[in-house]
Amino acid sequence: MAVNLRAPDPAQLHPVAGVELGVAMAGVRKANRKDLMVMRLVPGSSVAGVFTKNRFCAAPVLLAKKHLRNPVRALVVNTGNANAGTGSDGMRRALAVCSSAAAELGCRPGQILPFSTGVIMEPLPVDRIVAGLPQAIADLRADNWFSAAEAIMTTDTVPKAASVQVQLSSGRATITGIAKGAGMIRPDMATMLGFVATDAMVARGLLQRLTKAAADQSFNAITVDGDTSTNDAFVCLATGKGPVARSVKDLKTLGTALTEVAQQLAQAIVRDGEGATKFVTVRVERGRSAADCRKVAYAIAHSPLVKTAFFASDPNLGRILAAIGYADVAGLDTSKVDLYLDEVLVAKGGGRHAGYREDQGLAAMKKPEFTVRAVLNRGKAVATVWTCDLSFDYVKINAEYRS
Amino acid sequence: MAVNLRAPDPAQLHPVAGVELGVAMAGVRKANRKDLMVMRLVPGSSVAGVFTKNRFCAAPVLLAKKHLRNPVRALVVNTGNANAGTGSDGMRRALAVCSSAAAELGCRPGQILPFSTGVIMEPLPVDRIVAGLPQAIADLRADNWFSAAEAIMTTDTVPKAASVQVQLSSGRATITGIAKGAGMIRPDMATMLGFVATDAMVARGLLQRLTKAAADQSFNAITVDGDTSTNDAFVCLATGKGPVARSVKDLKTLGTALTEVAQQLAQAIVRDGEGATKFVTVRVERGRSAADCRKVAYAIAHSPLVKTAFFASDPNLGRILAAIGYADVAGLDTSKVDLYLDEVLVAKGGGRHAGYREDQGLAAMKKPEFTVRAVLNRGKAVATVWTCDLSFDYVKINAEYRS
Repeated sequence: MAVNLRAPDPAQLHPVAGVELGVAMAGVRKANRKDLMVMRLVPGSSVAGVFTKNRFCAAPVLLAKKHLRNPVRALVVNTGNANAGTGSDGMRRALAVCSSAAAELGCRPGQILPFSTGVIMEPLPVDRIVAGLPQAIADLRADNWFSAAEAIMTTDTVPKAASVQVQLSSGRATITGIAKGAGMIRPDMATMLGFVATDAMVARGLLQRLTKAAADQSFNAITVDGDTSTNDAFVCLATGKGPVARSVKDLKTLGTALTEVAQQLAQAIVRDGEGATKFVTVRVERGRSAADCRKVAYAIAHSPLVKTAFFASDPNLGRILAAIGYADVAGLDTSKVDLYLDEVLVAKGGGRHAGYREDQGLAAMKKPEFTVRAVLNRGKAVATVWTCDLSFDYVKINAEYRS
Repeated sequence: MAVNLRAPDPAQLHPVAGVELGVAMAGVRKANRKDLMVMRLVPGSSVAGVFTKNRFCAAPVLLAKKHLRNPVRALVVNTGNANAGTGSDGMRRALAVCSSAAAELGCRPGQILPFSTGVIMEPLPVDRIVAGLPQAIADLRADNWFSAAEAIMTTDTVPKAASVQVQLSSGRATITGIAKGAGMIRPDMATMLGFVATDAMVARGLLQRLTKAAADQSFNAITVDGDTSTNDAFVCLATGKGPVARSVKDLKTLGTALTEVAQQLAQAIVRDGEGATKFVTVRVERGRSAADCRKVAYAIAHSPLVKTAFFASDPNLGRILAAIGYADVAGLDTSKVDLYLDEVLVAKGGGRHAGYREDQGLAAMKKPEFTVRAVLNRGKAVATVWTCDLSFDYVKINAEYRS
């Protein structure tokens, strides 16, 4: 039921010089499906990441954060088991995977970033993953991005990848990425993972800033159900095999491109949201601060009432106004709030717009994609959040998962 | 589908000396249903209230808060229309209802507390309400609590009322109350209203404190979907026709009784929650502060993932741990967290308890009522929240409302 989302064309996923990807069927949870992915980086690559803020941080996330300080040589990603809520035994198992991958790849365990996604509170089947590593490593190729996108899927219905090329002052840079996630939630708040690579040469500190900025405008600006996974991670890497990005202009160009790829991936996750039938952009304008705008946008995007109204194509605008009202924005004057569905002005000055007719709202909401725009009229800040509706299938999928 | 909830026995609802109630079929939104209720108070009554924090506060709520400063003589409650999101015109209409009721009852408009619940962003049909007032006033009787409970229902499936009597030092006091709400949400985050009366004599300032304390342990401790209505109100009134409550002991006894009635009413709202099939008590213990415990309890109670697991009777404990992890409690050490389903220890020290078997969790969750108990092991504070599951019917009800 993904909303306007198709699998990417493998031919459009540009290889990134210095990155090779390989996959295997390791049988982590089910047989005969790609569930193990290795991404090998050329020595000297810069790697940056942002990770879940959930305090029940999964073992692989803790290790990946730690290993990020070292010169990273490879990422190892398994699906089928999240190795979360597994305590010190989980740490041992994640380390065992790193050790095995390091031995195969000829580096130190601390140079491997491990990622896991899938069911939680079950022991990671290290033996099967270790047994699958040689197959994944034998499969390492630069033009293997599509297969890698497939290998990190859990309950995603569509593999997610995006690729762009941009002109820097010393040449053309490639940015290619993959992601997984079908609403942050299944299986078990099951993690968004995003991996984006560029061949540009960027110092690690700068890359971390670009990564954080890209995440804030992509993976940190989507919500399906408000649940924050124990395993979420977004990692950017720059191999330095292509043009140097050093000037302010180059860094801006590269940052914009990273953000674009990250947005495509993040939006694909929402489009593939569990049970999603609508893809909704929530834009809040003229707030006093971006933080205030985000509060309002998330209040709208998280409200089960608003989301069921999206599902029903019911322009039940009071629900949206009510969500704005409880967004906890200090000093918000609701009598100044305007509300639009796409270009239709539905509420003006905090109340129903005199010229608004419900069939206009209905026409906007019947589309598979539309924008809810709240104008607070108290400043110059803006924020955008992408979300989906709450449908019967969301409940069905999450009630029946594991059974 | 209310969970273990039956209509109260009218004979068990003790009249409160100094309070009379009358109802009418005013045709506010639909014909032939009780939709207007007047509660007349004897002069000299103390009245206290707590109201929604939603910044899109409905017109009647704004007026009720203002009129609370005056010697209140009556409450006028209509269902069918919330008079919310209606701007200055809504204020005029709410005032018109007060003026008309005041003329009928022989007092000033500022002595009437108006309450409205129902659809929002539609003009309040003042004419029909005004036309219904004489009928409601003619119906005023002390033993009319059950009928009053029926008259304030919107999509509630069961009228909600509770009544207790307690011994104070100078005699027996009666506390009787009614409430409406079926999950804070339908129709349109449709308001919880609670009205509790006692014949005890309590000064207004003290009554306000007792009311706030009772609300914090009842209406402020329930959630169906996290949406905060524009119209929520909880009003307590003390007629002074019965025993005086002045000593610390008497006030404590009375406060406990008020809280008990408020809890019964608030829990009835959750039991009647839209689509609810389970009534779940979430108790968080040994936190550093009550506020921290409430954060954790609400994170669990609001998580759509946790709530669909409740619906499915799926002891998917990772979802609960994950919710605890993102509850934003500063310095929370997840490795100290224990988790129980009723008496079954399922997670110990942040991970699955070695002795836990899933059939134990399943047995606990299959019951229509159970307790999720998280022990943070970092202090002495506790908090309790009541909630229900998220079912197919929740989506159905909210997607189809208005259609």
